[in-house]
Amino acid sequence: MKFDNLLEQMKDRMPLKRWEHTKGVATTAVYLSEKYGEDLEKAEIAGILHDVVKFAHKEWLKEIIISEEMDPLLLTFHHELWHAPVGSFVAKNEFLIEDNDILQAIRYHTTGRAGMSKLEKIIYISDMIEPSRNFLGIEVLREKAEKDLEEAMISCVTHSLQFLIEKKQPVFPDSFHCYNDLIIRKEK
Amino acid sequence: MKFDNLLEQMKDRMPLKRWEHTKGVATTAVYLSEKYGEDLEKAEIAGILHDVVKFAHKEWLKEIIISEEMDPLLLTFHHELWHAPVGSFVAKNEFLIEDNDILQAIRYHTTGRAGMSKLEKIIYISDMIEPSRNFLGIEVLREKAEKDLEEAMISCVTHSLQFLIEKKQPVFPDSFHCYNDLIIRKEK
Repeated sequence: MKFDNLLEQMKDRMPLKRWEHTKGVATTAVYLSEKYGEDLEKAEIAGILHDVVKFAHKEWLKEIIISEEMDPLLLTFHHELWHAPVGSFVAKNEFLIEDNDILQAIRYHTTGRAGMSKLEKIIYISDMIEPSRNFLGIEVLREKAEKDLEEAMISCVTHSLQFLIEKKQPVFPDSFHCYNDLIIRKEK
Repeated sequence: MKFDNLLEQMKDRMPLKRWEHTKGVATTAVYLSEKYGEDLEKAEIAGILHDVVKFAHKEWLKEIIISEEMDPLLLTFHHELWHAPVGSFVAKNEFLIEDNDILQAIRYHTTGRAGMSKLEKIIYISDMIEPSRNFLGIEVLREKAEKDLEEAMISCVTHSLQFLIEKKQPVFPDSFHCYNDLIIRKEK
């Protein structure tokens, strides 16, 4: 990996298991970028940084969401969703990432959104299927990712919605709009 | 039934099987209204009229949606959704129903919405569980309807979302907001 130093820096920010996941996301994102013609460097940086504040204090994440005037709806949903937009903020302000494509990929890696870019899809999918992940149905998602990025994205967000609805959890609107957008584009 | 004449009038508007369904929805809605303290007459009228234009021509439904300036998003979704808002319009203008509670119950019986009234929930649930319906999981929905209106509504809308997502169909935003609203209220 070219960004060894950036990857090393993540070690202090998360438990080893999550760091292995981070490495897996970066590697998978680079692999998918080669396959689907995305910028490899952007994919690697976004993969490494996507969970940069995953283990930050909840109260601090909340403060950033408020001070940076991010979508206030976030605060009415589970704090699990907060690390993605705040991670994008930290990537920009602490790691001085200026590329908006990378920043958006970090920002929407948990919820998805309508109108995702190729890099956003690659990071979202990589986050779900990287080698250390293990859940029922993951093999189908990995197979789809080998064949078709759009189909893989539909299957990943569908899996995520089904998981939440099965557990009777609320769904952040961006995820729902992401699903509808992909389905409606496919129908056209 | 008190509204025999209204029910008879539905016979000319739909196949016999759908008329049996209509009768079942009205009966179930009255039953649930007795159980949960809703107005029996409103429930019966809404039940009888909920599918009043279910078999109207698609083009005519479309014309009404446009001329009455209903939500234009409807036209980008499956025409299966159109009969509910147009049914509410016909209930008002042809059957001279003035009660807004009844009109809203007809309007949202297919999609649901955030902030549904008790009558809206009763019609939505009755439409899914009336005696002539038969699908995998219906017994669980019927049992819930015997015990708790909120729980039954959550289970019905969850069933509906899961059905659509499983089939990779788009979900009308009202249905998604209905689900989230019920789940978030329950958590509070």
